[in-house]
Amino acid sequence: MRIDIITVLPELLKSPFEASILKRAIEKGLVEIHMHNLREYANNKYRQIDDYQFGGGAGMVMMVEPIDKCISKLKSERDYDEVIYMTPDGVTLNQGIANTISTKENIIILCGHYKGVDQRVRDHFITRELSIGDYVLSGGELGAAVLCDTVIRLLPGVLGDETSALTDSFQDDLLAPPIYTRPSEYKGWKVPEILLSGHKKNIEIWREEQAIERTKKRRPDLLE
Amino acid sequence: MRIDIITVLPELLKSPFEASILKRAIEKGLVEIHMHNLREYANNKYRQIDDYQFGGGAGMVMMVEPIDKCISKLKSERDYDEVIYMTPDGVTLNQGIANTISTKENIIILCGHYKGVDQRVRDHFITRELSIGDYVLSGGELGAAVLCDTVIRLLPGVLGDETSALTDSFQDDLLAPPIYTRPSEYKGWKVPEILLSGHKKNIEIWREEQAIERTKKRRPDLLE
Repeated sequence: MRIDIITVLPELLKSPFEASILKRAIEKGLVEIHMHNLREYANNKYRQIDDYQFGGGAGMVMMVEPIDKCISKLKSERDYDEVIYMTPDGVTLNQGIANTISTKENIIILCGHYKGVDQRVRDHFITRELSIGDYVLSGGELGAAVLCDTVIRLLPGVLGDETSALTDSFQDDLLAPPIYTRPSEYKGWKVPEILLSGHKKNIEIWREEQAIERTKKRRPDLLE
Repeated sequence: MRIDIITVLPELLKSPFEASILKRAIEKGLVEIHMHNLREYANNKYRQIDDYQFGGGAGMVMMVEPIDKCISKLKSERDYDEVIYMTPDGVTLNQGIANTISTKENIIILCGHYKGVDQRVRDHFITRELSIGDYVLSGGELGAAVLCDTVIRLLPGVLGDETSALTDSFQDDLLAPPIYTRPSEYKGWKVPEILLSGHKKNIEIWREEQAIERTKKRRPDLLE
């Protein structure tokens, strides 16, 4: 998989891709990440990529031309399955969407910044608008990092143990059950005995019950 | 505001706090961010902070003792309003929660990793469990960065223009209306005439209508 990220703040995105699972996925050649600094596509010497809103109001708007130039250059080099715009008013990302995107070959992610991009960018270049949640961020960069993380960990070969991703929350519409590790007693707080019993079948039943109970209590909407 | 982040991957969190609005907020002294590497609180020379699950199953679990040590040390130094655990089965973060947290003085954010933390950590140390959305990430670090970003930009003095945050999506339960900037025509794609008219009142009405229409179409749940 190849992911091209268009941003005004490539430096913000540096460390998330240089650590842990994303780093290993890149090193193994399972994914390629390319950052594009939008300012390099500005059309004046001040590297300006934003301007005031038509109609007035606080906050700057990212201009259509630099974005057009950057996307068009990338598209001239290869085909893209998706051009995704990270924006708080997009469709809310969920595990199903992450699963879908993980099957794509080449995608572009455009990070909004300031008040966002000129509407004409959204009308003419974007194939999918995604939000990572109902809250406002300083820019789309963290959203892009989140999207990449959710998607890349689903690529075959990225996680050492394939079953680990499958028992995560959301993969079966249930939250994960409680988990415990050593010591079996700490400051008088004990691990449930069932987990120490060695009865595989009973443990499985207990975990299923706990997962359903936790989901009912915390996220009944997932069971509907 | 002071935020202490407990993580096994402090290096992952480096760049998001060294760029843009978060960097400026830190430089202005409006927020202090302190990273704590959980491995420094490990109780053996291998700096081990995780172990296998009781009852079997894929994925490692973060042990209670190192987390207890780290949180207890911090609590011995000052009072904390919240100890927040980032986890996919927590309450889903939204703008209202971000607003609430932005009024706190000192908070701890614990980043889950691997399969998550021993349940006893959640039972005895955590005051609030938050998820940034219905998808699984490699760890809580990006969640912590997202939470910090949403919260810090709400602190007085962080954003240059106070009205900018108020006209963002979600602050009034409406998505933001379309925005445009120069040029007024690009490749034949025109900016709506109303925005070029100079009629402040009419522009305000148009934007309100567009915000409502966009919210109805994309996120009817916000209007309920």
